[in-house]
Amino acid sequence: MAEQVTISKTDSSSKNFFDAVKYTLRGAGQVMFQESAWTGLLFLAGIFWGSYECGVPQVGWGAVVGVIVSTLAGYILPGDASQGQQGLYGFNGILVGCAFPTFLPDTWLMWVALVLCAMTTTWVRTGFNNVMAPWKVNSLTFPFVFMTWMFLFAARELGGFEPTSLSDASLTATLSGTLDTSFGHLVVYWLKGVAQVFLVNSWVTGIFFLVGLALCSRAAAVWAAVGSAEALALAILFKADPSSIASGLYGFSPVLTAIALGCTFYKVNVRSAVWTLVGVAVTFFIQAGMNAVMTPYGLPTLTGPFCVATWLFLLPRFSFESTADKADHSFWGKL
Amino acid sequence: MAEQVTISKTDSSSKNFFDAVKYTLRGAGQVMFQESAWTGLLFLAGIFWGSYECGVPQVGWGAVVGVIVSTLAGYILPGDASQGQQGLYGFNGILVGCAFPTFLPDTWLMWVALVLCAMTTTWVRTGFNNVMAPWKVNSLTFPFVFMTWMFLFAARELGGFEPTSLSDASLTATLSGTLDTSFGHLVVYWLKGVAQVFLVNSWVTGIFFLVGLALCSRAAAVWAAVGSAEALALAILFKADPSSIASGLYGFSPVLTAIALGCTFYKVNVRSAVWTLVGVAVTFFIQAGMNAVMTPYGLPTLTGPFCVATWLFLLPRFSFESTADKADHSFWGKL
Amino acid sequence: MAEQVTISKTDSSSKNFFDAVKYTLRGAGQVMFQESAWTGLLFLAGIFWGSYECGVPQVGWGAVVGVIVSTLAGYILPGDASQGQQGLYGFNGILVGCAFPTFLPDTWLMWVALVLCAMTTTWVRTGFNNVMAPWKVNSLTFPFVFMTWMFLFAARELGGFEPTSLSDASLTATLSGTLDTSFGHLVVYWLKGVAQVFLVNSWVTGIFFLVGLALCSRAAAVWAAVGSAEALALAILFKADPSSIASGLYGFSPVLTAIALGCTFYKVNVRSAVWTLVGVAVTFFIQAGMNAVMTPYGLPTLTGPFCVATWLFLLPRFSFESTADKADHSFWGKL
Repeated sequence: MAEQVTISKTDSSSKNFFDAVKYTLRGAGQVMFQESAWTGLLFLAGIFWGSYECGVPQVGWGAVVGVIVSTLAGYILPGDASQGQQGLYGFNGILVGCAFPTFLPDTWLMWVALVLCAMTTTWVRTGFNNVMAPWKVNSLTFPFVFMTWMFLFAARELGGFEPTSLSDASLTATLSGTLDTSFGHLVVYWLKGVAQVFLVNSWVTGIFFLVGLALCSRAAAVWAAVGSAEALALAILFKADPSSIASGLYGFSPVLTAIALGCTFYKVNVRSAVWTLVGVAVTFFIQAGMNAVMTPYGLPTLTGPFCVATWLFLLPRFSFESTADKADHSFWGKL
Repeated sequence: MAEQVTISKTDSSSKNFFDAVKYTLRGAGQVMFQESAWTGLLFLAGIFWGSYECGVPQVGWGAVVGVIVSTLAGYILPGDASQGQQGLYGFNGILVGCAFPTFLPDTWLMWVALVLCAMTTTWVRTGFNNVMAPWKVNSLTFPFVFMTWMFLFAARELGGFEPTSLSDASLTATLSGTLDTSFGHLVVYWLKGVAQVFLVNSWVTGIFFLVGLALCSRAAAVWAAVGSAEALALAILFKADPSSIASGLYGFSPVLTAIALGCTFYKVNVRSAVWTLVGVAVTFFIQAGMNAVMTPYGLPTLTGPFCVATWLFLLPRFSFESTADKADHSFWGKL
Repeated sequence: MAEQVTISKTDSSSKNFFDAVKYTLRGAGQVMFQESAWTGLLFLAGIFWGSYECGVPQVGWGAVVGVIVSTLAGYILPGDASQGQQGLYGFNGILVGCAFPTFLPDTWLMWVALVLCAMTTTWVRTGFNNVMAPWKVNSLTFPFVFMTWMFLFAARELGGFEPTSLSDASLTATLSGTLDTSFGHLVVYWLKGVAQVFLVNSWVTGIFFLVGLALCSRAAAVWAAVGSAEALALAILFKADPSSIASGLYGFSPVLTAIALGCTFYKVNVRSAVWTLVGVAVTFFIQAGMNAVMTPYGLPTLTGPFCVATWLFLLPRFSFESTADKADHSFWGKL
């Protein structure tokens, strides 16, 4: 454009800087499917609040490092730059950045591994999306899940990552404590279910995240709330581990499934809502199942149950729409 | 047709009812690849005989519930209705219906989970078939295997599913008892190998199943018999766990592989028969291998070994036919 | 050709025999991507040296049997004979032939299973390549890895395979011994990293392999050396198990990744070299991670980490070449 030619050098590079910040913040937002820097900023604020509240500030800084290096990784290698502008380069890396300082000791070796892993997720995402393109689904947060699993498994073998904050390996799961089901406590568990999407154990962070979602999409905020609530109800009904319920660990995957199915990959209507509620229920059981798979290793499932359940409910390619408002499946992760 | 217009309302709805029963029974038959309601009826009779003989009548009723709700699930959502008419909606669900009451306590929570899981298998089958369509194979009974694994793993974490009838988790397998290899006992093990396709531990049920197969396809009955016998011989030769052999637990996957390769996906001839015998042998080793994979969880392999081995022997797409009688690979599971 | 018509019967069959030997030896060479009978011969010599040095001569003979029966298996069934001529039928089978006598007792049952497994890998390779063809990668040594895993898992359940030389199953890995990091010892570990590609624990064998590689491709020899060295440095830095490092068990997968990425699937240039160095680092962490996955079973990872890491770094389909020397991705494993 003619005007752009005349802007001064300084303006241009400060514009570039703000663009870079915007795309990077969108990476935070895309973890819950929102292409919005403001949403991303609120998510980041929530992560920092929670990480300082829980006495693990390195988790907040890990998130910052993770989202920056993974976004950079996308621009280093040739690819579709529009994906970077939508924040699709950074959403796996920010989760790596939250997970590494949560489970591994705060040493320089951990930070080296964090950077390597976060950058790799961006490239692996391109590869996984290539694999899944014929199936008309994308890799969701699985690049984060897969690569982080590999490094956490590796932490079981490498003295350089000790002492970890991982659970002890054991053959059978133990149910610990009893659950306080007073209304106030239920609200806390419900909000923590949302906060745990970024591995944060703080109900205040859950509020940050819901507000961040609402800024960009009220439907997404509603579905996040519904997903966490439905999973909480099922966890209580089927008697899941009380301490896991109280930390929101049965909530985060259903929250993501709810946003994915309820208002991202399907248009909002009654039939897609019913489908989403079923998908959230199945996510709950897959969460419990994958917990058991990981028990002998003492490793977390991360958002694996969300990926598996969402794939299961997208792969049949059912359409829940009248021909009038035929689905536009092209949003997010154009493969 | 003109005649149909003139039939009375009552006739029409009773016809619809009998059609529904027919399609549902075909679901039972399709577990062993037979599109026949009579075969399905004999399979169901065998399941009931065995479940009452073993003192677990809920297994029989679980099979009925499973096949009905999974067939319904197929008709609820848009799809190719001809698949339902061939019984392809119900064959995963009936296996879910046999497995849940076998391994989980007979409570209302179990029945809720059974219905959810059985219905989901029908949808998941559509998704898995979409995934596998480019490879020219279909998902076989893997929707049942995958979803049931998830719920059984979940049962390790959820107090609502206790006490389970699952094995104890342990790091190493134990060989228990000694094997009576008199001819009469060998026949019993061999028949139980067939019966365990539906998780039934009864040699009489094995006879029901062989007769049911013969009603629809003599080749299928012969291959079922051969598959169970070959696996039994290998299990004795390679010294598998005596109590597993005696319960037919090394037979059911080879039985299915034998029917699948021997007379379903390949036409019957000498070369395909040799290929099938090799496939059955490999199924035996994969059965033993997957038993070991599941040992730390105390979970059954279900028909997973059959799926894996059959895929391995279909994926190379070898043709064993003269150009004259070129294979028609279109039977069962038109993708 | 006219001349060929006139050669005597004897000449023709001796030519056929030497061709068969050549194609079979190329099978050994293709384990490290070299279509050269001379390279294969040196690899085989290295295996024999190591197997006699370590007092397990059956490993050398297993390699011979494995490469022969798997090459035969390819010719028994219809297929693209040019693959056999390139040695692509035998490279999985020779690894099966090294692995079985290494981990299982030297009994006739083991040899029966070795032959069945080695032959099956050739067919499974065709199937896996069909699966992966749309993704533009091939199955690498995964047919060997997958089938051998199944038989080694099975060995945990089958008395006929006892006593195995597999590790004890345990919930947590133990770091044993201390590492002598004098220069001479480091060279030994580094050479053993190359030797372990064929499961051989001998530094002399490592020299055989490097020389064999250099005969066919100096780039491959250099990358093998670099891959083993980089993995050794990372293993020491991140404090991996000293006895595993000393046996070269952190080296063999990175060696293969280095040859695959550095000079086989990408042309040699600066950018592909950087990509390869990153890929080798990721292979190291995946090696450690898969070690941990296998710990509760006491099973080896085989070359699984190489396959996984190499796929991860091929699937994004990044191009590191100027348009002038556009990559020819058609080498090895034409799908």
